[in-house]
Amino acid sequence: MPNKDALILGIDLGGTKILTSVINPKGEMLSRDHSVTPAAEGPEGVIRAILASAGRALEGASIATDRVSAVGVGAPGLTDTQAGILFISPNLPGWENVPLRDIIQERLKKKAFLINDGNAAALGEHYFGAAKGVTHFIYVTISTGIGGGIVIDGKILNGSKGMAGEIGHMTISEEGPTCQCGNRGCWEALASGTALAKVARKRIETGADTTILGFADGKIENVTAQNVQSAAEKGDPVANDLILQTAYYFGVGLANLVNIFNPEMIVIGGGLSNMGDRLLKPAYEVVEKRAFNRAYRTVRFVRAALGRNSGVLGAAAFAFEEMKRERDGGPGA
Amino acid sequence: MPNKDALILGIDLGGTKILTSVINPKGEMLSRDHSVTPAAEGPEGVIRAILASAGRALEGASIATDRVSAVGVGAPGLTDTQAGILFISPNLPGWENVPLRDIIQERLKKKAFLINDGNAAALGEHYFGAAKGVTHFIYVTISTGIGGGIVIDGKILNGSKGMAGEIGHMTISEEGPTCQCGNRGCWEALASGTALAKVARKRIETGADTTILGFADGKIENVTAQNVQSAAEKGDPVANDLILQTAYYFGVGLANLVNIFNPEMIVIGGGLSNMGDRLLKPAYEVVEKRAFNRAYRTVRFVRAALGRNSGVLGAAAFAFEEMKRERDGGPGA
Repeated sequence: MPNKDALILGIDLGGTKILTSVINPKGEMLSRDHSVTPAAEGPEGVIRAILASAGRALEGASIATDRVSAVGVGAPGLTDTQAGILFISPNLPGWENVPLRDIIQERLKKKAFLINDGNAAALGEHYFGAAKGVTHFIYVTISTGIGGGIVIDGKILNGSKGMAGEIGHMTISEEGPTCQCGNRGCWEALASGTALAKVARKRIETGADTTILGFADGKIENVTAQNVQSAAEKGDPVANDLILQTAYYFGVGLANLVNIFNPEMIVIGGGLSNMGDRLLKPAYEVVEKRAFNRAYRTVRFVRAALGRNSGVLGAAAFAFEEMKRERDGGPGA
Repeated sequence: MPNKDALILGIDLGGTKILTSVINPKGEMLSRDHSVTPAAEGPEGVIRAILASAGRALEGASIATDRVSAVGVGAPGLTDTQAGILFISPNLPGWENVPLRDIIQERLKKKAFLINDGNAAALGEHYFGAAKGVTHFIYVTISTGIGGGIVIDGKILNGSKGMAGEIGHMTISEEGPTCQCGNRGCWEALASGTALAKVARKRIETGADTTILGFADGKIENVTAQNVQSAAEKGDPVANDLILQTAYYFGVGLANLVNIFNPEMIVIGGGLSNMGDRLLKPAYEVVEKRAFNRAYRTVRFVRAALGRNSGVLGAAAFAFEEMKRERDGGPGA
């Protein structure tokens, strides 16, 4: 894809963590720095943390800094890739219209590129992971929220202003619960980890006979999707039932993607995908029931291969891509 | 786009009508034949009707038949464009895996191309109508059902097997009414003309004070969306309320398209779009409420410009495109 010895600094900015890495064209990570996102400190504090992490990643790679030709930044929320702006981010309070690309570029004195985190992860899986060689696929991440990236003819679907791919905010239940985005019944509001934790808390409050609370230090406000998973693994029928409900909603949204996109593959990543068959098998059964049979039969569902690294590797892949495009003759090339 | 003096025979096969026309590269229709689809007669009868209509259209154009270089066929239902097969069509009983392209090709002794009707209409609007010069848009038709075509970077989104774009069958209300496709709560099951007529009949049955029945010869089984429109135009509040409900559901689905695709434009066609502001204005208000504000603000909603001709013009545009691609060096060119 790129210059053989060019390196990219990949940055994966998340609502809870920052992952930074020096990455070569084969997708090998020469260093890896992992830190907590000081989200409460707002843009300034977070940007300071990003730069500190970048410094450590550059140092950790033990290379001459000038071998790093560019920086690829993946960020959560609505981004304008062309303008390099992060418009808003539900998980990063205080971020509004931040020209993150130019800030990084100026501070690190390297060409930088900004991409939405879901799109980054999709590119990561495309170049280095589960979707190598697949030209029509959708990457779906199911974790705190539901996000993703849509790849058509080998390219990210950006839409007219770079805001496409907000699949977590498609309505699947028009009178459903209110979503953080202001809409109701979004896929994310029904099938994410946050949604699962919320219904678990509600069940506990209404006196359900379940062991979930024991996995959350007995504190209802601490209950997470992970706790529900732990309880289900120990045979708790209420926990299992809650996961089945999440799987149902997850499947409804997947069926929509199958009918709308007729993808060759859907790659599932994110924390909740680690529940494996317990969550995914019943979800796929819902897709089989609800989607066009012929479209269902042509799609392959696979787990993401890069785990927590898909975002940072994809941000780097994006930077490699853009650098190549510029070498080959400008954005139109 | 194509050879200056090449002509295409466009065929728009619908569940209720067949429209056939000889079309030049400017999108001018040199002839136009309109007939009823004998759907009940199954594939054989319908194909006979198509060929008869084609004969009349060729005759009507008063040209040497060999000036028609190819045939473009738009068909309703799940199609495989590459293989030229109409898999199934909810509105054409008995059609299953019909190799329609090759049949037409053989009978008319002309190169033929098959495309889904929603995609055809999208291409028609792209080449000759409301979306000229627009590279990211979605054509949505709201009539008996809801269909459409998605154009990305100036090209139809086909998906991995040519089945993409079934936007009418995205779930917007997971526990909603059963759809003809077997799913529940599809957009089409809630916001189409069929859905509107169905809820109107239900309201009448439950004794609503409305004039709708008077527009349907007093027969409840005859009530159509058109009758509801007529009643609403005369100030019938129940009819108006029914249209508002349809508009609400229509808006929910549009909002999904805005969030998923961030399109530059959404072109609305189909019979119900003739209701104009009565249906569309409240629908757009729902989009404004439910979609990401920034994506909503960048999308332009426009009415289709080609009316009933968008499908046949688009089928021709598709054939022009494919012929050009073959001249330029094969499908990969």
